[in-house]
Amino acid sequence: MRVLVLGGDGYLGWPTALHLSDSGHEIAVVDNFARRGYDTELGSQSLVPIEDLDVRVAAWQEVSGREITSYVGDLLDAEFVYSVVREFRPDTIVHFAEQRAAPYSMIDREHAVYTHHNNVIGNLNVMYAIAEIDPEIHLVKLGTMGEYGTPNIDIEEGWIEIEHNGRSDRMLYPKKPGSFYHLTKVHDSHNIEFGCRIWGMRATDLNQGVVYGQTTDQTTRDPRLATRLDYDSVFGTVLNRFIIQAVLGQPLTVYGKGGQTRGMLDIRDTVECLRLAVENPADRGEFRVFNQMTESYSVKQVAELVAETFPGPVQIDYLENPRWELEEHYYNVKHTGLVDLGLKPHLLSDTLIESLFPIVEENKHRVDNDLMFPKVKWASAKN
Amino acid sequence: MRVLVLGGDGYLGWPTALHLSDSGHEIAVVDNFARRGYDTELGSQSLVPIEDLDVRVAAWQEVSGREITSYVGDLLDAEFVYSVVREFRPDTIVHFAEQRAAPYSMIDREHAVYTHHNNVIGNLNVMYAIAEIDPEIHLVKLGTMGEYGTPNIDIEEGWIEIEHNGRSDRMLYPKKPGSFYHLTKVHDSHNIEFGCRIWGMRATDLNQGVVYGQTTDQTTRDPRLATRLDYDSVFGTVLNRFIIQAVLGQPLTVYGKGGQTRGMLDIRDTVECLRLAVENPADRGEFRVFNQMTESYSVKQVAELVAETFPGPVQIDYLENPRWELEEHYYNVKHTGLVDLGLKPHLLSDTLIESLFPIVEENKHRVDNDLMFPKVKWASAKN
Repeated sequence: MRVLVLGGDGYLGWPTALHLSDSGHEIAVVDNFARRGYDTELGSQSLVPIEDLDVRVAAWQEVSGREITSYVGDLLDAEFVYSVVREFRPDTIVHFAEQRAAPYSMIDREHAVYTHHNNVIGNLNVMYAIAEIDPEIHLVKLGTMGEYGTPNIDIEEGWIEIEHNGRSDRMLYPKKPGSFYHLTKVHDSHNIEFGCRIWGMRATDLNQGVVYGQTTDQTTRDPRLATRLDYDSVFGTVLNRFIIQAVLGQPLTVYGKGGQTRGMLDIRDTVECLRLAVENPADRGEFRVFNQMTESYSVKQVAELVAETFPGPVQIDYLENPRWELEEHYYNVKHTGLVDLGLKPHLLSDTLIESLFPIVEENKHRVDNDLMFPKVKWASAKN
Repeated sequence: MRVLVLGGDGYLGWPTALHLSDSGHEIAVVDNFARRGYDTELGSQSLVPIEDLDVRVAAWQEVSGREITSYVGDLLDAEFVYSVVREFRPDTIVHFAEQRAAPYSMIDREHAVYTHHNNVIGNLNVMYAIAEIDPEIHLVKLGTMGEYGTPNIDIEEGWIEIEHNGRSDRMLYPKKPGSFYHLTKVHDSHNIEFGCRIWGMRATDLNQGVVYGQTTDQTTRDPRLATRLDYDSVFGTVLNRFIIQAVLGQPLTVYGKGGQTRGMLDIRDTVECLRLAVENPADRGEFRVFNQMTESYSVKQVAELVAETFPGPVQIDYLENPRWELEEHYYNVKHTGLVDLGLKPHLLSDTLIESLFPIVEENKHRVDNDLMFPKVKWASAKN
């Protein structure tokens, strides 16, 4: 299949492009390097050095013999989006190309507006390109488990059968997300579901959990293929950040009581979920939703797991929670859709955590400690 | 109270400003005249001639002795929004200032993107102005009954108690809107609910039905105070459009079978609902939702009602439906919140319909027949 990976230079977009290429698909990536730009803005960088996209693509051709086409441009530029779709003629568009950090979206008005503009309008341009050029194209869109929030009932996969006053309907699962970033993904989901109704679009919305890990079967074939590893309080996600803190001898920073429970998955499962979604497209007119996660852990459990695994002393600090979130709540998520397609999850084991220790150790001179402490507070409109 | 009416030059914003002023409140209106600009773009105009905002404001001062302050500017200009809020220091912000036509949002990509940008980002700027300048300000936001779509269960007021697998939660009512315009209102609702959680905003979301009528107790006091009356297929809403078609001797154009049922209300009830919401603010942190409608009618029933009332022959044409919507469906809406605050509805009676006949008769030379036929098709991404 011909697969266009939007955001193909990012943390997960790049390993996904490699995994799909390795599986025999024809791949092109699109990126505007916004993620690298956020590093410049925030004074942060990936813990593991990453190469420029052209070096990455050349290295992949060297080790695999397979070509990846790259297009550099912005999804806000509709002419660019249309021209790429016309030229590459994808069967599938995998859409990772959104601003993905909740704290970044909560810095202030400008960042909330930027995140809305970039994510929602970029996604609309992609939807219209599909509708106008080739409605057969399957859109595989990255959402987030954070769209659901933490309801007091089971979380279903996107749709829920609701019985009310003696009648019933299959309805979109009600969303109550916890940041402006997460809200943009909710907006995208609503827009895409509508596109499926009016244009017969075929779409898969992947509500992804917190991803951990940094290596896949493809990225380890050459150091130039490495993907990024973020540890800062804005873009670093919880498990990766705790592992880095442990190796650095810093306390693990749990927000609040740490009872916040989240769905998680290994980066190797992310790329495999993407392959399964791509190779098993949604039907025309179908808005298909998968909860892309394999296990649930509370933040406190994750901290304790890292502390137990690390071969040295580890301190756990409980900081005042900068976010608005429930710290004790029910959390039971259905996530059978991808397993039904054949996903064999890598469960969070000592092996994964231990495998990250040497990677962090090797690069710990690159860490800026100041970046690990959370400075963006949800209650403040201007941080 | 000091009330800032955003979109105060529009079809409902202007009569609302007058009604609130007449009720003793201090009023300022904000507008960028976008609605007048759409007329220029589409080659349409209000059936009833309307005056410029400065003439309207002067006329109101003449007949009532009361002053209305006006600010001309765009909600996309955050500096402008902040400066108006700082200068006028409102207790309440009534927010009508969004692109409000479903067909306009469905013309093509540019119009869908414009509607998202204008509505969602404009609303974010208002939310941030409140959060940064004065979180005590009550936001009264115009939503639409179209956010809900036509579910097979009762439509509650914004929130629904869901029982699922033996557990329950009070959740946001699931939305399934029927156009990109309606989707932007869904996005706004989600964003505002989040603002109530993180900043303790106080907000009332008014999910308004289809408004009919053109006169209120205030607008009739001077012809210069008239509000607009739209008959074109883009901005004209169903009942007003049918009345105009009847007077012109044209067939009433029902889309599809006409079984589409919608909540409706008289323009005099709209302005009264706004007064009730303003004078009874939501609590800090409360996201309060009212379904602002008084009766439900199918499009076919509305056509038949107009045909029966008009003192001459009326033909009803059933056109191919340009929209994506169910033409036969369950529709039962709870709308007790505003009645509990004291609303005494004007139900759709012969009186209202008949009162519009002479208004249309007097202005029928201004009609461009071509504009009444629907040209924007939902299934087409480029109209």
